[in-house]
Amino acid sequence: MQKVKPKVVIIGAGFGGLTAAKYLKNKEVDVIIIDRRNHHLFQPLLYQVATGALNPADIAVPIRSIFSKAQNIKILLGNVIDINLKKKKVITDFDTLDYDYLILACGVSHSYFKQDQWEEYAPGLKSLEEATEIRRRIFLAYELAEREKDQNKQKELLTFVIVGGGPTGVELAGAIGEISRYTLSKDFRNINPGRTRIILIEAGKRILPSFKPELSEYAARELEKLGVTIWTNTYVTEVGNGYVKAGDEIIKAKTILWAAGIEPSSLNYKLNVTKDKIGRILVEPDLSIKNDPNVFVIGDQANFSHTPDGKPLPAIAPVAIQQGKYVAKCILRDLQNLKRIPFQYVDKGFMATIGRMKAILQYKNFYLKGFFAWLLWVFIHILYLIGFRNKLIVFFQWSWSFLTFRKGARIIRSKIWKTREHESFILKSKKIINKKKL
Amino acid sequence: MQKVKPKVVIIGAGFGGLTAAKYLKNKEVDVIIIDRRNHHLFQPLLYQVATGALNPADIAVPIRSIFSKAQNIKILLGNVIDINLKKKKVITDFDTLDYDYLILACGVSHSYFKQDQWEEYAPGLKSLEEATEIRRRIFLAYELAEREKDQNKQKELLTFVIVGGGPTGVELAGAIGEISRYTLSKDFRNINPGRTRIILIEAGKRILPSFKPELSEYAARELEKLGVTIWTNTYVTEVGNGYVKAGDEIIKAKTILWAAGIEPSSLNYKLNVTKDKIGRILVEPDLSIKNDPNVFVIGDQANFSHTPDGKPLPAIAPVAIQQGKYVAKCILRDLQNLKRIPFQYVDKGFMATIGRMKAILQYKNFYLKGFFAWLLWVFIHILYLIGFRNKLIVFFQWSWSFLTFRKGARIIRSKIWKTREHESFILKSKKIINKKKL
Repeated sequence: MQKVKPKVVIIGAGFGGLTAAKYLKNKEVDVIIIDRRNHHLFQPLLYQVATGALNPADIAVPIRSIFSKAQNIKILLGNVIDINLKKKKVITDFDTLDYDYLILACGVSHSYFKQDQWEEYAPGLKSLEEATEIRRRIFLAYELAEREKDQNKQKELLTFVIVGGGPTGVELAGAIGEISRYTLSKDFRNINPGRTRIILIEAGKRILPSFKPELSEYAARELEKLGVTIWTNTYVTEVGNGYVKAGDEIIKAKTILWAAGIEPSSLNYKLNVTKDKIGRILVEPDLSIKNDPNVFVIGDQANFSHTPDGKPLPAIAPVAIQQGKYVAKCILRDLQNLKRIPFQYVDKGFMATIGRMKAILQYKNFYLKGFFAWLLWVFIHILYLIGFRNKLIVFFQWSWSFLTFRKGARIIRSKIWKTREHESFILKSKKIINKKKL
Repeated sequence: MQKVKPKVVIIGAGFGGLTAAKYLKNKEVDVIIIDRRNHHLFQPLLYQVATGALNPADIAVPIRSIFSKAQNIKILLGNVIDINLKKKKVITDFDTLDYDYLILACGVSHSYFKQDQWEEYAPGLKSLEEATEIRRRIFLAYELAEREKDQNKQKELLTFVIVGGGPTGVELAGAIGEISRYTLSKDFRNINPGRTRIILIEAGKRILPSFKPELSEYAARELEKLGVTIWTNTYVTEVGNGYVKAGDEIIKAKTILWAAGIEPSSLNYKLNVTKDKIGRILVEPDLSIKNDPNVFVIGDQANFSHTPDGKPLPAIAPVAIQQGKYVAKCILRDLQNLKRIPFQYVDKGFMATIGRMKAILQYKNFYLKGFFAWLLWVFIHILYLIGFRNKLIVFFQWSWSFLTFRKGARIIRSKIWKTREHESFILKSKKIINKKKL
């Protein structure tokens, strides 16, 4: 008689979900991974796609190609609409799946602080679609400025506002500065790209608040060298077509990018579990939800506060990776009837880049800034990229840009296709969930 | 007193327009290039983007980066709406431009034989947008088949119909065959990608009619080895959502691709010039239009029949390139008051690939097929790719695919963005022209 293997369903193939699946590869479990996309995305480099330095496929790998040799792992493309914790069922837009173990690794999306209408004017950066849309807007602004005769409109087109001074906002602002000062410097006849205005708006006292003040200060000075103006203590009160209101002031800008605030998966609000203020699920020391040890929540979707200082772990890749590995091992220990050991995070530090050849990094009490920090940043990012092919390609693209000051992927593409059922299921699950009543 | 330089306006930066501009670089003329896209596209490799082997940016170069050192060349992104030949004006959607010389190099688009509603169900392959849309449909079909339980629907999803047995149709069919037999062979659990049905429909007696019958025959046999069924003498009478009518038969297929028939730029119908049956402009021996020696038409947009056999030159890259060079030199000769010499085409032959490692080529009476033809094909395509960076990247991607049987760009992306004025001007000019009445 064949033994029935426990069914593990993993929702989301980001850093957390993917790592969990890797540790369950060819083990005595049947794994199903559900994701809305067919690819795992290396999000830390997404800003490079948005600014034309890398191709979408350079930082994305088809999930099923990662697991082609793991016969116990099945990958399904689709949206999860609801979860029935009592009956142990995952309800998707194409089927209902049973589970013995469930790993929630859905990540987070942007928060516009309940002003969802801002999204159209100020896209955020979480997916390849958004990255290529941002790339389109950035390079299109220069094209439109080149053919514009009205000086005021030209100025509007050459003004870029980035809302949010965390790592994403800083990296976007730095990359746009680099484009305007180096990449495009000789390509236009009517405009001078070096006159681009780049404004980085941050509500807090300083940019990069998770870093030490010295590093924030250094980053701010380096950004200024690339032409970025930093407005701290500034709240955005309105975003519209071609303008941003910040306090009493109005800035006219054709390109506005959003890098402020996150909100968790809407799935969180469908589950009867304890959540924190911003909606992340509060997890137990073993990353399971209260009273349901077979349901785990990992990565950005979770709030893990069983830390020495009681603060939740940050929303960064190393946390998701360590948690993914931990829950996979937890499941395997369960199957051997071994006791679970509480999850412990091993601090790996923080990093951020600021334009060309500059970065900052902080590891416990040690910190580094400048060129060597940037070299380390390059090394670590290539090391963690999934797939040998992508490592090589990214290394090549970076070497090329480094030597020539050029960017490889400055392509503007429009979207002329209206598709029907092909499209429906990759829509944001948020909208689908709102529509479908179960 | 400064001499006023003659103004040359080039519409379109394909092979023809780009070559013309290259030969006018830093000469005593002021050049404006107008294009609907910001990039030159290496169309012969577009089918590789559509089948996930290459990234869009690998075969596209920003036009302005090609001419960053040519101060006499200005690039403008926009649509040409009309041309006033009498007043020597080009009317665009953003401005009106004067010219002394005009080079029309707009290329062609697909023809659905007056059944434009078929386009939604059977996209063609002329632009990066279309290529990524086709890529999305191909890889999505496998994803949907994997999660489908109904056998009939699964079969529909795993059926691909390609309409048109010219080089594009053959290359698409071959690449899909390769994907189904090699690339995806181990990636699915519920379906066997090797069971994919690929049907290539051709209205004529044989596929690749521009090649010798022996080569057609060889290509047909090689395609069959990759699982492609070839239906010759078959007319498509209807295309709808998920089906193709061919004569009396109906094939159910979720993915239908269109590689049959071309139609010239709608601009042709606005100009009071002589045209051939399919709407291409009939040009004089010097590629100018009748009674207007300062207006040239080159590449696919033109019908040049001053050939030994009286047949129009084929719609291939070498023709456009030679014509671009010729008209640039014509203009420069005019400025020196030298007489124009009639255009003469130097035959460079034809090539086509059939899946992995097989190709055919024909040069006058010489022909070659198989692996060595494929090696030559690889060499020539890398040689003609614009930009050293792209040459390297494509070489790398091909070597990688060759060694691993993998494709680098199997990314499915949806289009979640609704954009406003950002988008409007990259719409197909056809539609814009229809709307705007001048």
